Parts: sequence; C-alpha cells; structure tokens
Amino acid sequence: MNPQYREYVQLKVSRNRFMQQLGFELIEIAEGQVKGALIVGEMHEQQNGFVHGGVISALCDMACGFAAYSLVAEGVQVFTVELKVSYLRPGIGEKILAKGWVLKPGKRFHFCESELYAVKDGKEVLIAKASATMGVIDDKVNDKYGG
Amino acid sequence: MNPQYREYVQLKVSRNRFMQQLGFELIEIAEGQVKGALIVGEMHEQQNGFVHGGVISALCDMACGFAAYSLVAEGVQVFTVELKVSYLRPGIGEKILAKGWVLKPGKRFHFCESELYAVKDGKEVLIAKASATMGVIDDKVNDKYGG
Amino acid sequence: MNPQYREYVQLKVSRNRFMQQLGFELIEIAEGQVKGALIVGEMHEQQNGFVHGGVISALCDMACGFAAYSLVAEGVQVFTVELKVSYLRPGIGEKILAKGWVLKPGKRFHFCESELYAVKDGKEVLIAKASATMGVIDDKVNDKYGG
Amino acid sequence: MNPQYREYVQLKVSRNRFMQQLGFELIEIAEGQVKGALIVGEMHEQQNGFVHGGVISALCDMACGFAAYSLVAEGVQVFTVELKVSYLRPGIGEKILAKGWVLKPGKRFHFCESELYAVKDGKEVLIAKASATMGVIDDKVNDKYGG
Repeated sequence: MNPQYREYVQLKVSRNRFMQQLGFELIEIAEGQVKGALIVGEMHEQQNGFVHGGVISALCDMACGFAAYSLVAEGVQVFTVELKVSYLRPGIGEKILAKGWVLKPGKRFHFCESELYAVKDGKEVLIAKASATMGVIDDKVNDKYGG
Repeated sequence: MNPQYREYVQLKVSRNRFMQQLGFELIEIAEGQVKGALIVGEMHEQQNGFVHGGVISALCDMACGFAAYSLVAEGVQVFTVELKVSYLRPGIGEKILAKGWVLKPGKRFHFCESELYAVKDGKEVLIAKASATMGVIDDKVNDKYGG
Repeated sequence: MNPQYREYVQLKVSRNRFMQQLGFELIEIAEGQVKGALIVGEMHEQQNGFVHGGVISALCDMACGFAAYSLVAEGVQVFTVELKVSYLRPGIGEKILAKGWVLKPGKRFHFCESELYAVKDGKEVLIAKASATMGVIDDKVNDKYGG
Repeated sequence: MNPQYREYVQLKVSRNRFMQQLGFELIEIAEGQVKGALIVGEMHEQQNGFVHGGVISALCDMACGFAAYSLVAEGVQVFTVELKVSYLRPGIGEKILAKGWVLKPGKRFHFCESELYAVKDGKEVLIAKASATMGVIDDKVNDKYGG
C-alpha cells in the first residue's frame, strides 16, 4: 500500500502523546505487524500491585492501531471502532511486550489482533489477547468516526 | 453486601496509581454504580488531537471495576476478565464523564457496563460504551485470575 | 431515512431463511428499534436442556440487524461486522423476547445493542445483552464486507 | 484432566439438539481443540443468500464450548460467559469448517478461540474469528451461571 509505511507509522508514533506518557515504544515495524515494549513502573499499577487493566487495554489498542497504520496509504487515518481484551493472566513483570497484527485488511476496516506478554526473570508469559476493528478513512477529521 | 462499600471503593481508589497518573477521579459512589471525571490534558491525546482510545478503554475499565467493587464484601477482590469498548464518537472536549454500573451481579462475576461522555462547552456527548465481565474472588493474590 | 422502513425491514425478514428455521418473528418495528419473539422448542436446546447459546447469539444478531435496517435508505444493506454477547443468566422459559436498538447511527456503521428476556410463568427475566457493529453499505454484493 | 475426554465431549454432542438441528458435526477431538463441519443448506441463509451471521456465531460458540469440554473433569459443566465474533468475510461456500481451541485453561474459566472457514470449490477461506470466556463449574444446574 505504502512503500514508506515505516516512516508513516513512526510519524504517528511521534505525535502520540499518551503513548509517550505511558512509556510505550515500538521496537519492530513490518507490513501488517508491529512489536513494542513498555518498562513497567509504579505509575502502571492498579490497587493490588499488578499492571493496571487500563494500561493493558491501551497497549492492546496501540499494537492493533499501529499494525493497521502499516497497511494504509499515506494520509489515510486509522481509528478504533471497537476493541475487546481478554485478561488471561495477571500482569506481573519488569517489562510488557506487545505484538499487534492485521488479521484481515479491507477497504473500510482492518480486523486486527494483539497479544501482550509479561517478561519476568527473562521468561515471557502471555497475559492478554485482544481483537479490534480498526476503521480506515481518508483524512477528514470531522468525519473521523464515519458519523 | 457491604455496608461500608463507599469506604471500600475509596480504599481501592487510593491505592490505584494508574488512575492517579491519568487524573481520573470518582465523584459519586452508590450501590452498584459509580460516576467519575477526568480533565482532559495534552497527555491524554493521540496523534490527531483527540482523547486516546487507550485512555477511553482505561476509563471504561475503571468505571466498570469500581461499580463492581461497590457490590462485594470487604476483602473480596474484583478483576477484569474481559472488556469490550465501542468507540461511538471521537473524544473531543475539556472533560470526560464516566458512568459505570453492575448489570447483573453474581457469586463468580459481575457483568458490568460503562458509558463515557465528552463535555464540551457545557454539552455532554456519548462517546463510548463498554461491557465487561468482572471476576469476583476472595483475596488470594496468587489465584487472582482463577488459574 | 426511509419513510417505508417498516416494509423494508419486513422484506428482509421475508427472505431470511435461518430466521424462519429458528421460528423467530418480529412483533414490533419502530425507527431504530425492533422487538421479536421465539417460542422455545426442543430444537433450541443445548446439552443441559437450556436454550442454546448459539440460539441466543443468533437472536441477538437478528435484533441488532433489523434495528439497523430500520435506519437505512431503501436498497442499502446491513451486515454484521462484529457481535459480542454476554450470557447473564441461563435461558429457561417458554418464550424468548428480543429487543434490539440502534445506539448510535452513522454513515458507515450503526452501533447497536440487544437484550433477550426469557418468559416463564408470565415473568420476564433478562438473560443476555449484546453489542454489535453493523456495517451499512450500498447494495454491491461482492463488496459486502468492505474488502 | 479426563482420560475419557473424547467420550465426554461425544456425550455432550449427543445431547445437543440445536447442534443436530443445524447439522453441525465434530470431525476431530483432541486435548484442548476440536474441529467440526457443516454442510451449507438453504436453511442456513440470511436475506442475501450468504450463511447467516447467527449460524456463524452459533458455530463459533460450539467450537469454543466443545474445546473447553475436552479440558475438564468428568461431570464438570462448561457454559458460555461471553462470546465475541468478528465477521471477516461473507459466508459463501458448500461447507463450513470450524476449529476451536483453548487459549488459556483455568479453574474458573477457559479462555477459548475459534475460526470458521468457508469451503468453496475446494478452497478454504477464513470467514470468522471468535473469542469466548467459557465458565467451568461442577454440575449444579441451578447455579449454572454463577449467580
């Protein structure tokens, strides 16, 4: 779709303040898939000392969204239509790895999935799995959600 | 279930670092329902200047979770089994209001829902709707996800 | 959108073989909402004698879909992008009532919800709640899923 | 968990009237995964001649549920807590293949996934992907949903 897809994804990353706030960074960008990492800190915890479910859902959303951005033309926007996250295991570890990919691309939406792994003492454990419908739309901001 | 449910929810709020990090606060706590608010800042934005989908999913999760905590006995823990968020409209506004409630309580899980409203120039617009299965479990941390 | 929306929904109902096979019938059609009923028979049961989860998900899908059809122009097609069903209580009763409505209409999709009630001895009990993204598209069959 | 898991799954299949009504049959049963097939007939169609979304959600539910039954002890029951289905492509073909597996087993729930393939002229096309939370519970019928 876009030979400069890596640069386009990086552009979107560079403008994403909430992603920076969380401390999430992409470490691999390929066609239709991305991988990212987050170093877990105190600010990511919920009341019991685990990584908060809201951090997990945010990482799932970002991994799906950037995977989708790797499969659209320059200037085309991606937005989340809906996201479902299954919380398989508690988020315990020093680092979270997030993998996102496009399961089925389309003209109107890309169906995406993502998986999160908690890394503790060098071992990776799958902690969450998500599926998302990502809308794909030309850059008309006021029409962002198809309304 | 718990005559001190307000104090129990407040205890959970006070320990929730990610909630504080986001700037989300509860403004009403009743049996089986809560209401909260977040003042939108730059740190909550995604690449197009709207409130990030990850902020929205996190608020939906918190609203469902604290509603569930209002309907359990002291010492019982609530954890998110799964969460689905529908992004109805873009998040544009100075403030986000989040309402969460228990649709169907149970011994093993509380089915919960939440709605988010963006407040702009005094007008509230529904921007997201979520449904979640919240697990309910006695406080055995290592058993947190029923595994 | 379509002053003849009732006739358009009825047309879609008349062509829906699986709906007839199940025995599901619409009993009310209004703008953006429908109501239907199914008389429970042996064929609807799963292994424990309750209404099968697949019957329940099918009714949730139909209630959302026909509600969406009531808010599109003549000749426009509706298709399910995704559907999530929460099974709140077991399906026990002589009849199932299904209510579907459009939560947020749009040019590209209608976000819909549906609720199912089991009727037993004259009492209605909420047994399932669903949310769905319904795609809205002009009648180009080969493009049905936006691919 | 259960050395007789194949027989236990077959027992559940034999009592499942809705499954028989649909014409869905299991063709492979292994630990934590099943495969089934449905010959498409007129009764499975929706208004545009494709396999109905309700048939698809029912097959996704069954594939997840029987996969879960292969990983529980004799006498333990499995029930659907929630199910989400993404409709990737239209259901066009002579046959539908359904694969279901347990992504993460647990004491209280098994997180499951399923994929449906439409077979047309000998070619298999992925048409749907589902995720489900399957409750696992000792055989107390009145407590079926944990309420």
